[in-house]
Amino acid sequence: MNRWDVVIVGGGPAGVTTALSAKNSYHDKNVLIIRREETSLIPCGIPYVLHSLKKVENNIMPDKPLEAAGVELMVGDVVEIEPAAKVIILRSGEKLEYDRLVMATGSTPFIPPIPGIEKKGVHLIKKEMDYLRDLKKSVEESRRIVVIGGGFIGVEVTDELLKEGKDVTIVEKLDSLLPLSMDEEFGTMVKEMLEAKGVRVLTGISVKEITGEEGTDGVELENGEKIDADLVLVAAGYRPRLELARKTGLEINERYGIIVDEYMRTSMKGVFAVGDCAAKKHFLTGEFTKLMLASTAMAQGRLAGSNLYEVKVIKELRGSLGTFSTKIQGTAFAAMGLTEREAKKLGVSYVVGRNETVDRHPGKLPGASSVYIKLIYAKVSHQLLGAQIRGGDSAGEMINTLSIMMQNNMTDMQVDTMQIGTHPLLTSSPIAYPIINATVDAITKQ
Amino acid sequence: MNRWDVVIVGGGPAGVTTALSAKNSYHDKNVLIIRREETSLIPCGIPYVLHSLKKVENNIMPDKPLEAAGVELMVGDVVEIEPAAKVIILRSGEKLEYDRLVMATGSTPFIPPIPGIEKKGVHLIKKEMDYLRDLKKSVEESRRIVVIGGGFIGVEVTDELLKEGKDVTIVEKLDSLLPLSMDEEFGTMVKEMLEAKGVRVLTGISVKEITGEEGTDGVELENGEKIDADLVLVAAGYRPRLELARKTGLEINERYGIIVDEYMRTSMKGVFAVGDCAAKKHFLTGEFTKLMLASTAMAQGRLAGSNLYEVKVIKELRGSLGTFSTKIQGTAFAAMGLTEREAKKLGVSYVVGRNETVDRHPGKLPGASSVYIKLIYAKVSHQLLGAQIRGGDSAGEMINTLSIMMQNNMTDMQVDTMQIGTHPLLTSSPIAYPIINATVDAITKQ
Repeated sequence: MNRWDVVIVGGGPAGVTTALSAKNSYHDKNVLIIRREETSLIPCGIPYVLHSLKKVENNIMPDKPLEAAGVELMVGDVVEIEPAAKVIILRSGEKLEYDRLVMATGSTPFIPPIPGIEKKGVHLIKKEMDYLRDLKKSVEESRRIVVIGGGFIGVEVTDELLKEGKDVTIVEKLDSLLPLSMDEEFGTMVKEMLEAKGVRVLTGISVKEITGEEGTDGVELENGEKIDADLVLVAAGYRPRLELARKTGLEINERYGIIVDEYMRTSMKGVFAVGDCAAKKHFLTGEFTKLMLASTAMAQGRLAGSNLYEVKVIKELRGSLGTFSTKIQGTAFAAMGLTEREAKKLGVSYVVGRNETVDRHPGKLPGASSVYIKLIYAKVSHQLLGAQIRGGDSAGEMINTLSIMMQNNMTDMQVDTMQIGTHPLLTSSPIAYPIINATVDAITKQ
Repeated sequence: MNRWDVVIVGGGPAGVTTALSAKNSYHDKNVLIIRREETSLIPCGIPYVLHSLKKVENNIMPDKPLEAAGVELMVGDVVEIEPAAKVIILRSGEKLEYDRLVMATGSTPFIPPIPGIEKKGVHLIKKEMDYLRDLKKSVEESRRIVVIGGGFIGVEVTDELLKEGKDVTIVEKLDSLLPLSMDEEFGTMVKEMLEAKGVRVLTGISVKEITGEEGTDGVELENGEKIDADLVLVAAGYRPRLELARKTGLEINERYGIIVDEYMRTSMKGVFAVGDCAAKKHFLTGEFTKLMLASTAMAQGRLAGSNLYEVKVIKELRGSLGTFSTKIQGTAFAAMGLTEREAKKLGVSYVVGRNETVDRHPGKLPGASSVYIKLIYAKVSHQLLGAQIRGGDSAGEMINTLSIMMQNNMTDMQVDTMQIGTHPLLTSSPIAYPIINATVDAITKQ
């Protein structure tokens, strides 16, 4: 029986980062990733296989960094773990011994309990090569498409379908698009952009049933309205993939994932869990959160990988911040930390700072986009609690500046006197720099 | 005689920010800016009036924010200050009384002691509307241009002249382009980009003389070589404008500017100085530094404005960080903190982390640019000391993330476990995120 120092089950971003970090931290240990498919896909790139990336093969995560680091790769399906003997059993019957085990089994699409959801013509957004190839083909053969779910994935998929010239209706049961990650004012901006391109956007209403005899012919809403469709795409979020953890006897929360401590250690000695399959805590409340982001998974992977044999890197973070970004109809949206909606729900005492400007200076320079920033600061303690941006491409990095500010517990006064760099062709003017000016706006409201 | 609570001499970014900050912090005080020209120019936009902005008028800094805040504007030339009486005298003879005075007199181009520099056809990069209009006209009438000075301004001007179809030679006396702000490897990249477009780039050599009878007909180098030119542009840095401060009896350093404490207070009670005219300290050594950046000026302006009557905002910074960015031939360059060259000169014990990747993921997505990051970390204390980037437009905001990391004294291990956000259409992949990966590279070298 082959023996490995470190075995990682799962080859997504969390698994890969853990492997690289383990090899960096413990050069002499041999590290194996077992994954179920020949290749791994870039999870956040999946919506873009429908149009921008042209084919699914263009969204493969390269193995080169793993090979260069000396990480071994194996394709296989782990069906059982015997933690007492430290043995893994594959579907092929093969057995492996391990010293440290990392669960990076990821997540699977949530299937909402809508009658008819099993019908032919109803598709999920699975992270599997063959499934996505079939989906892409079905999309190409369809004209009218209903997307169920108005979160990031639903909206990104809708934007791609638009570029493919499809007739799209998107249905979100909460009151606005992007309801979990951004405030209503941003959801409304996205709604208006999509509507301007002919998308029908329905919010605050649920799908009662997926209709059709053989395959689907559309959906029926709660209010009785029928929407015809050749294809229904369900983007209703993801759930941690927990079969193996459950079977192994790891402590789990069925809704949120494998229970881990702040160093990603599970309830069993020598067994870690990282990424979508690991339960995450909210940075402010310490409660479980549904957030699943590749970037958070990687922070966990780096932490777990460095600390597999001893605590080398001290954990700095109090929980998941949820820093993310997307681009809809050529406009970037980004958010991190608390939204105003969340702040209200949690009973946090806060002030809001806002600023709108352009991201070049003077604004007449080519490539200038409008930028709108909303910041949430704590009253009394003055700490930055959250940020939302609508802007040009640079919003993707601007949200990281804010994320670093928040992770350093910076206050409005500290942000106010920060030194930032600006350039006419790359950023807003120093006088108009929106992070600073939204902060000044918040200070005046304290 | 008119009496003002706050008088600011100078209407550039430092003066404007001080005024806005003063109005925000002390609503009841009246605030006046006295400037020498009808309009203020955006200083960092000046190179771009030569081509990208089409005309000088497109680079005017709008007065709207000042008007909206209730700041008063006056055009005039302050010729004398009587600090004992708290009186300002304008060239027109008009006198004003003040309670708090802020010197924001900016800087003027340094004129290197090159024989012939006074000749017709030799131009500086002054921050004055009429001067720049004349310069633009002369450039349009010239074919062969020599640019003296290979710092940011010299290189930006060269890039603009290229777009105007000019035949350009750039001469830098130090060993590489951008010698004060970036390491040689980046200077070489810029050199190669410019050379590929036909620019003659000469480094490590000085101009001995500016030749010509009536007007200039070119320059002669130290080695005797003669370069023909219809126009010579001198971009040899700037010096603080100190006439008024000197006359008033404020403590000054002739080379670096008006001496200020950490709250921008000068040697005279009630008199502050901000921006290019104020002497700045290096964040690491505490020695004077030549850095002149609008973004630093603004941080000073916000600090001074908030603290004119009492210390409201505690100063966080130890000195000038020098966060800046530019774009040459469509490629962004950015830097903050120490270069490797400086680290060596200062005897700092350091390690270098490097990473190269693309700023979209997968890299096949449209708009992807290569990104190369070099980070300097302290040995033993592990703190981030400096960063340099060559990349796409998002480098302009990425350098701010690094700047915030450094201003929070973050170590390599802390950066390693940070949560950042990524998106296929906006940033590098989370696995490839270059700030993190360059940091990991540095950690492995500790």
